[in-house]
Amino acid sequence: MEKIPVGIIGATGYAGLELLRLLLTHPGVSVEALSSVSFEGKPVSEVYPSLRYICDRTLGSEEDVVSRSQVVFAALPAGLSEGIAEKCMEQGKLFLDLGADFRLDDEAVYTTWYKQPYRKPELHEQSAYGLPELFRDRIRNCRIVGVPGCYPTSAALGLAPSITKGLISPDGIVIDSKSGVTGAGRSLTQTTHFPDCNEAFSPYKIAAHRHTPEIEQTLSKLAGQPVRVTFVPHLLPVNRGIVSTIYADLREPLTAEAVHAAYTDFYRGEAFVRVRPLGETANLRNVRLSNYCDISVHVDEHTQKLILVSTIDNMVKGSAGEAVQNMNILLGLPETTGLELIPTAF
Amino acid sequence: MEKIPVGIIGATGYAGLELLRLLLTHPGVSVEALSSVSFEGKPVSEVYPSLRYICDRTLGSEEDVVSRSQVVFAALPAGLSEGIAEKCMEQGKLFLDLGADFRLDDEAVYTTWYKQPYRKPELHEQSAYGLPELFRDRIRNCRIVGVPGCYPTSAALGLAPSITKGLISPDGIVIDSKSGVTGAGRSLTQTTHFPDCNEAFSPYKIAAHRHTPEIEQTLSKLAGQPVRVTFVPHLLPVNRGIVSTIYADLREPLTAEAVHAAYTDFYRGEAFVRVRPLGETANLRNVRLSNYCDISVHVDEHTQKLILVSTIDNMVKGSAGEAVQNMNILLGLPETTGLELIPTAF
Amino acid sequence: MEKIPVGIIGATGYAGLELLRLLLTHPGVSVEALSSVSFEGKPVSEVYPSLRYICDRTLGSEEDVVSRSQVVFAALPAGLSEGIAEKCMEQGKLFLDLGADFRLDDEAVYTTWYKQPYRKPELHEQSAYGLPELFRDRIRNCRIVGVPGCYPTSAALGLAPSITKGLISPDGIVIDSKSGVTGAGRSLTQTTHFPDCNEAFSPYKIAAHRHTPEIEQTLSKLAGQPVRVTFVPHLLPVNRGIVSTIYADLREPLTAEAVHAAYTDFYRGEAFVRVRPLGETANLRNVRLSNYCDISVHVDEHTQKLILVSTIDNMVKGSAGEAVQNMNILLGLPETTGLELIPTAF
Amino acid sequence: MEKIPVGIIGATGYAGLELLRLLLTHPGVSVEALSSVSFEGKPVSEVYPSLRYICDRTLGSEEDVVSRSQVVFAALPAGLSEGIAEKCMEQGKLFLDLGADFRLDDEAVYTTWYKQPYRKPELHEQSAYGLPELFRDRIRNCRIVGVPGCYPTSAALGLAPSITKGLISPDGIVIDSKSGVTGAGRSLTQTTHFPDCNEAFSPYKIAAHRHTPEIEQTLSKLAGQPVRVTFVPHLLPVNRGIVSTIYADLREPLTAEAVHAAYTDFYRGEAFVRVRPLGETANLRNVRLSNYCDISVHVDEHTQKLILVSTIDNMVKGSAGEAVQNMNILLGLPETTGLELIPTAF
Repeated sequence: MEKIPVGIIGATGYAGLELLRLLLTHPGVSVEALSSVSFEGKPVSEVYPSLRYICDRTLGSEEDVVSRSQVVFAALPAGLSEGIAEKCMEQGKLFLDLGADFRLDDEAVYTTWYKQPYRKPELHEQSAYGLPELFRDRIRNCRIVGVPGCYPTSAALGLAPSITKGLISPDGIVIDSKSGVTGAGRSLTQTTHFPDCNEAFSPYKIAAHRHTPEIEQTLSKLAGQPVRVTFVPHLLPVNRGIVSTIYADLREPLTAEAVHAAYTDFYRGEAFVRVRPLGETANLRNVRLSNYCDISVHVDEHTQKLILVSTIDNMVKGSAGEAVQNMNILLGLPETTGLELIPTAF
Repeated sequence: MEKIPVGIIGATGYAGLELLRLLLTHPGVSVEALSSVSFEGKPVSEVYPSLRYICDRTLGSEEDVVSRSQVVFAALPAGLSEGIAEKCMEQGKLFLDLGADFRLDDEAVYTTWYKQPYRKPELHEQSAYGLPELFRDRIRNCRIVGVPGCYPTSAALGLAPSITKGLISPDGIVIDSKSGVTGAGRSLTQTTHFPDCNEAFSPYKIAAHRHTPEIEQTLSKLAGQPVRVTFVPHLLPVNRGIVSTIYADLREPLTAEAVHAAYTDFYRGEAFVRVRPLGETANLRNVRLSNYCDISVHVDEHTQKLILVSTIDNMVKGSAGEAVQNMNILLGLPETTGLELIPTAF
Repeated sequence: MEKIPVGIIGATGYAGLELLRLLLTHPGVSVEALSSVSFEGKPVSEVYPSLRYICDRTLGSEEDVVSRSQVVFAALPAGLSEGIAEKCMEQGKLFLDLGADFRLDDEAVYTTWYKQPYRKPELHEQSAYGLPELFRDRIRNCRIVGVPGCYPTSAALGLAPSITKGLISPDGIVIDSKSGVTGAGRSLTQTTHFPDCNEAFSPYKIAAHRHTPEIEQTLSKLAGQPVRVTFVPHLLPVNRGIVSTIYADLREPLTAEAVHAAYTDFYRGEAFVRVRPLGETANLRNVRLSNYCDISVHVDEHTQKLILVSTIDNMVKGSAGEAVQNMNILLGLPETTGLELIPTAF
Repeated sequence: MEKIPVGIIGATGYAGLELLRLLLTHPGVSVEALSSVSFEGKPVSEVYPSLRYICDRTLGSEEDVVSRSQVVFAALPAGLSEGIAEKCMEQGKLFLDLGADFRLDDEAVYTTWYKQPYRKPELHEQSAYGLPELFRDRIRNCRIVGVPGCYPTSAALGLAPSITKGLISPDGIVIDSKSGVTGAGRSLTQTTHFPDCNEAFSPYKIAAHRHTPEIEQTLSKLAGQPVRVTFVPHLLPVNRGIVSTIYADLREPLTAEAVHAAYTDFYRGEAFVRVRPLGETANLRNVRLSNYCDISVHVDEHTQKLILVSTIDNMVKGSAGEAVQNMNILLGLPETTGLELIPTAF
């Protein structure tokens, strides 16, 4: 097939690099432009020597990327994507944002958490929240996609069947998530300095992480009523992966078998969600380097809590892989194109 | 001062080694005997080359240890400690059990979880549950101490002020704990094989871990009513340390300041519990290689959840250090003797 | 193209799993049979839950694999491959051995190191040593391939240009190699138990590792005279990757530029060897999860030592990937088929 | 005994913190002042929360430290210590420099590697190189000590018996060292960012590390002739520890037994050097958190290479512990005072 030209704005962050890695082996597209404010003018393989002789393309400007691509990806800090989205719309291009600017429907919520208003509110009406397993139909009809955050992907996929089918109370949900350090990005911080991070562990931004409203938005839509969650992320001393351990109150006593059946039913036909057989526990090692979300279902019978374990590779299903999955939908390609990645196990 | 002769039964497990390391530098005792079923007849420094020229003592039998020690420690699998305790009582010795046999008051509960009865029920009436911060008075008057499990130490210390002061509902408590791999012991398993464990993460024994009844026993005593908890342990790819992230419903709206004040009040004068200043988050790197339990207090105001982070070094405050702390109490020594260990930070 | 049926004997070891992962995505072959003595009768995805819904094939017997495959791979301990090779030859099949039985030309050397004789010496005359960059022509004309060991791949590729071009003395070569823990295999040992291995480091089998004669065999062939090396492997607390730091005496003073030019010349056109630009240092993170061997060239001018750094992913270029590369040669496919893997960088 | 007041200039780097940790538990001294340019005015426990309630001392100025201490330690970048040393000499105080300014005898060598001259050459005549096992007599008679670098400590102790007794050729020595990441310090770099460093490995500053002249200086003194070495450091993804694998040519054939006997003889009576029993291999896990240097001796009989493995905790014997050991000598205390640290094994 003829390859569609694509490009990445912000190609030298971790999400940008991971996306590049996936797009370079995607059979339907051709990477035609990359940009980086920090490294403009240098070959991307100077920033990431792993790419030497595979992709030595010179990093250019945002404008280069927009003009040379039919599909534009951006992996940027919050507040920088609307202008790019506008240009893409004007020039008839597709835009997928790996950042936070197109994830929240409600501008007031966005402003509360990101401390800035929408500059182009009308663009948001044309955009979709890119969680294909839950919102595939809307995605298909949009030209702008806000790719979900990593934590929200794991949390929403873990809870969706229970919320949708009314198995659990919408109150009192606890999401205890643990993320590998790539989730904190490539920028240097004391917290992610090796000797401070290795052999260490703690939660951070307790009940104050920006992914909270995003999780609540999805669950509220599915529940048809406002859902509030307690969300606590932790920094896990591994490179990749998120494990969310989720606690919710069953509305009425249910066996693990019954809940498991509801989950397998809900995700029937989904290529990237694996409900683990009953009795198994999801482990991030089983999804690393793949686009899978693995979910295991458990019931604490003596407290009537439902316990869900949902795990993804934060850089793939939690970011770059999910972006490619959305692109496939927008382009009318099979959703798994370029994403048939087998977890490495070690 | 004259040194008191002490010995360790089961000295070559991880808990045994850690205890040996602490006792060798304790100014009030002298290690006079060590036993190991697996390595009897060999020097302990052959099993742990780290000890070469520091302690090359030959591993002997259980009988050696009992006869040569005034204080006997055992670090054994469940079901093996009652006989030793009996001998110690007959011979007028003190006995501290790092295993599970003297932790549970209720034989029925023990039998449910450990699949065996008490062989000497009368011994249990003379024993104390060795969590000094909560049960110091009883410990002082006993000659047998069941040293608490690692998870129960972190969970009970984290929850004690809230439960005791009635700040939280006794229902719906969630304890999401993460433990370093030494917690799984020295025995080989596929799960703890380096390539399976490194860069991996998952919960295990979900709502089915033997430490659950031990946590509930302590909380129920403090609450004066039965408390049930949802307890989920996780295997964390670090050598040492436990972090318990604990979620509970506030009985009525409270600020973090108010809860924090209750905690600092409750633990005033305790040498080994550090309530972190408000705004800080407990991190296991700050307690590694020490006998501290660090606790941080957080309130999710939009859901009225109290969130506690409680962290210990599982091998010190969660096992060998706590054992020494109990020994100090039994011997009438200052509780911090031999335990003035500064966390290493890296 | 029509897919060629292939199978793996010993599919549940780490090398077997990695090979399966690569073959499942190889466009020219179809995995038709897997065997395992330990897990016969179980689905491979029960042993490796990462494979669930990707490959749930039941593990069968060695005979199944031979009869159902046109290309047979074996990943077995030493001494088990000759019988399989014989059956393959009788039935007109190709055989690739990831174990040690077809690596050494000289039976006496094999017997010294592996403590057993060749049972079928005639088979060894029909086999090739599967290091394509050095012995491609012979491989192409054989039906049995002994896939090289991981350390020998990194060492031989690192030294080949220097030895072949006579830049260095064949005496006094030191190969200091460090390998990730998957190199030790899936079997449980105290050394590879997480708490013993993590945050630890040491050499092992100093000047006594079975890969020594294999390295010497290749270098001696290239040199046209006997070459002896000092080879010391180390266990590196990472999952994957080998770094060999190699020291040799320059025959006469040469600049790094001159040596570098010799290396780029030697490896011109090789798809899987990347001589790093002068000034860069090879790092295993740049080759992880790929079939590349990265080599950097350095000269210590004040001692006239040539220093080479050669790094591979031990499970890919050091084992399963190299096996696939050999298979491609045997089948007449482009050598890179199924191996266009981009290193993950993190 | 009366405690001697001591202080640390540069207390918030990793070496400064480690030194503080050791001095706080040293029975003969009292920490009276700490300084930090970056954090002046803050409590040290704000920079290192591990110290909370143990040492909350406010960080002051360099002048504070000098004036309030009888023994002054500095842990600073190169070029900053001479001025402090001068002040200490004027005020009759002892000065121990954990930095590089008092390690090299030859100003020209210092200038070549550190790009600056000595400002106070006369001070260097009064200083000692603080490797007690080799230069104890000189240390005892000086008031300024240059505490050796971490790599030079491991390399020099590993080679000293062989060089001194003439067992090896002084030419062609290769020192292949691997250091934990604390060796790179607390400052943030891309190389030590967790996702770039974890699961990665490579040498750095190949044959160009500033510790090279320091190693050569010691070996040349012991040999009585100039010795040049090839020194290659590597960054090891662990927090602590150095392993140096050292290769040298035996002058004439010797058995491992003979070399081992020479080593045990040379280090007889040394508290902190453990020559491992023949057949064992030194492993950094056996020295972590202790002041030991473990050395194992190996002979590659087929190449007549002597192979030495020398391992230390880079932050203890390689820095802060060695500084305390020197202080003990200067103060006339037993050399092991405050340093009876048992390696943790895990």
